[in-house]
Amino acid sequence: MEKMRIVETASYVPDKVVTNDDLSKIMDTSDEWITARTGIKERRISLGENTSDLCTKAALKLLKQSGWSAESLDMIIVATMSPDSYTPATAAIVQGNIGASHAFCFDISAACSGFVYGMQTAAQFLKQDWPLKILLLGGEVLSKVIDWSDRGTAVLFGDGAAGVLLDNQYSADSGLLASVLETYGDQHTKLTAGQTKPLLEFPPQRATQISPFEMDGQAVYKFATHAVPKTILAALKQAELSLEDVDHFVLHQANARIIKAIAKRLHQPLEKFPINIQKYGNTSAASEPLLLDELVASQQIKRGDIIVLSGFGGGLTVGTQIIKY
Amino acid sequence: MEKMRIVETASYVPDKVVTNDDLSKIMDTSDEWITARTGIKERRISLGENTSDLCTKAALKLLKQSGWSAESLDMIIVATMSPDSYTPATAAIVQGNIGASHAFCFDISAACSGFVYGMQTAAQFLKQDWPLKILLLGGEVLSKVIDWSDRGTAVLFGDGAAGVLLDNQYSADSGLLASVLETYGDQHTKLTAGQTKPLLEFPPQRATQISPFEMDGQAVYKFATHAVPKTILAALKQAELSLEDVDHFVLHQANARIIKAIAKRLHQPLEKFPINIQKYGNTSAASEPLLLDELVASQQIKRGDIIVLSGFGGGLTVGTQIIKY
Repeated sequence: MEKMRIVETASYVPDKVVTNDDLSKIMDTSDEWITARTGIKERRISLGENTSDLCTKAALKLLKQSGWSAESLDMIIVATMSPDSYTPATAAIVQGNIGASHAFCFDISAACSGFVYGMQTAAQFLKQDWPLKILLLGGEVLSKVIDWSDRGTAVLFGDGAAGVLLDNQYSADSGLLASVLETYGDQHTKLTAGQTKPLLEFPPQRATQISPFEMDGQAVYKFATHAVPKTILAALKQAELSLEDVDHFVLHQANARIIKAIAKRLHQPLEKFPINIQKYGNTSAASEPLLLDELVASQQIKRGDIIVLSGFGGGLTVGTQIIKY
Repeated sequence: MEKMRIVETASYVPDKVVTNDDLSKIMDTSDEWITARTGIKERRISLGENTSDLCTKAALKLLKQSGWSAESLDMIIVATMSPDSYTPATAAIVQGNIGASHAFCFDISAACSGFVYGMQTAAQFLKQDWPLKILLLGGEVLSKVIDWSDRGTAVLFGDGAAGVLLDNQYSADSGLLASVLETYGDQHTKLTAGQTKPLLEFPPQRATQISPFEMDGQAVYKFATHAVPKTILAALKQAELSLEDVDHFVLHQANARIIKAIAKRLHQPLEKFPINIQKYGNTSAASEPLLLDELVASQQIKRGDIIVLSGFGGGLTVGTQIIKY
């Protein structure tokens, strides 16, 4: 077992609720259509707050809950596919906002798998022999890159931030048991957002545009319902555990139908697959920590529980970890 | 010494050369002005090739030189502040292009420190007991986010990609000796590019814009000339080495004046500070591996040499490693 303790969890979502009915007023859709196909009833949309603002609020909650000082942090990673900017990294802005002057900071981009890829990166840094404290956040303001005239994608996504404090103070009851991370770059065109094109002539004739979400929903559905069970089984084998040993499957909330298909494929009861997509939509890298925080805060997840944490999405990427909480 | 061997280096820059004279035709500047203040004579500008295209070409060179198969790679990291898109990650596109089907992939965003932050992340993964092969690239198409009417920033930046193959097969003559990474997020406004703003109302009234480079040149100069020597001295102390033990100071090529000021502050001969900014301008995360590759290819860097690798820039961030090549 790797020395990685999830010390605290916290989350922050913007106030503005946009319901399916709200969306039906600006595009040809309906609550019935969205609910049946995705499980989503409403999502939060950030008005005026950027990704670093949401992440800062989640970070301040984490520090308050843990009693850790900002100065005690050694490292800050933000997993995001909707950073405030190309530079500075969102993690650097958060560091400045909270005063974590001893932490070095960078962002990780792996879309909806970003939080798990960040957990895996953090776990590598935690292999040090000396005490290390890491703040890992998943934060997104996806509303910045949604095409609000495209009913196929606009109904799916939401904004939010959540994260964890991690340390390597060994506890026999907590740690990382196994992980399997895979990327399928041959399918990179199946889910895209935020593209910027290179110049075509010099001197250039145009300002840089950034493109909204485009998705081949069927391809992503097929990918997720195959790759997630496959990596869960491979990671459990590594950890020498069975599906029955798992207390909670904390999966990326992309679509309730995907989660139900994965539960069915694994022959596991749906009760072990918590779902909160009805409230937030798909919040990409924020989705797993947002759900994890709800489950920890409501004491559904308790110390010693075996958790499967699995992210999947753009890349296409998938990442699964088995964690003893 | 940490098990990290730089097995190969390679680089790729786009064909299109834009000289200072070319720039003086589209903005109020001159070769004399740019050369005196920056040391830059020309830069490459990518026409039609995005960041993943440049990175793919550098990756294919690395595989060819090393004889490694794409399938043998375990991990691909691209350090970039000008990714093709928010999703997929540039690393995932490269993976698909070269057929590295067993590698998991993500991008790191830490601007001009991105390559060193990527090296540090790679070094953590290389701590495994089993053999691991990592492709780390720094790639940028900064021309996408340059304001070509702003002579203060447009003259500074260029496009390119370069990288390394890393493994953890122990060699007593190669490895990572020490590293110091720092972030100064309280100064995050001093160098910005590629900003996207959150919505201000819902339903939204506008398409998402992405902002060009903005820089407080004096603040960045002051930061770099202090933070780089400070982290070099701290890293050398960690490694129990002196400045005289260093064969090559491979610094981020942001400005020849910054490099000269750092050499002077460290009381080291300028000959130990190779400079290639005259040909490429500031290529951000691509800059250090581009220079490293030139020095390795021309056999100026030889096995056993002690190298200081240092990146600095947006964040503000700085990262310094001491490497036995």
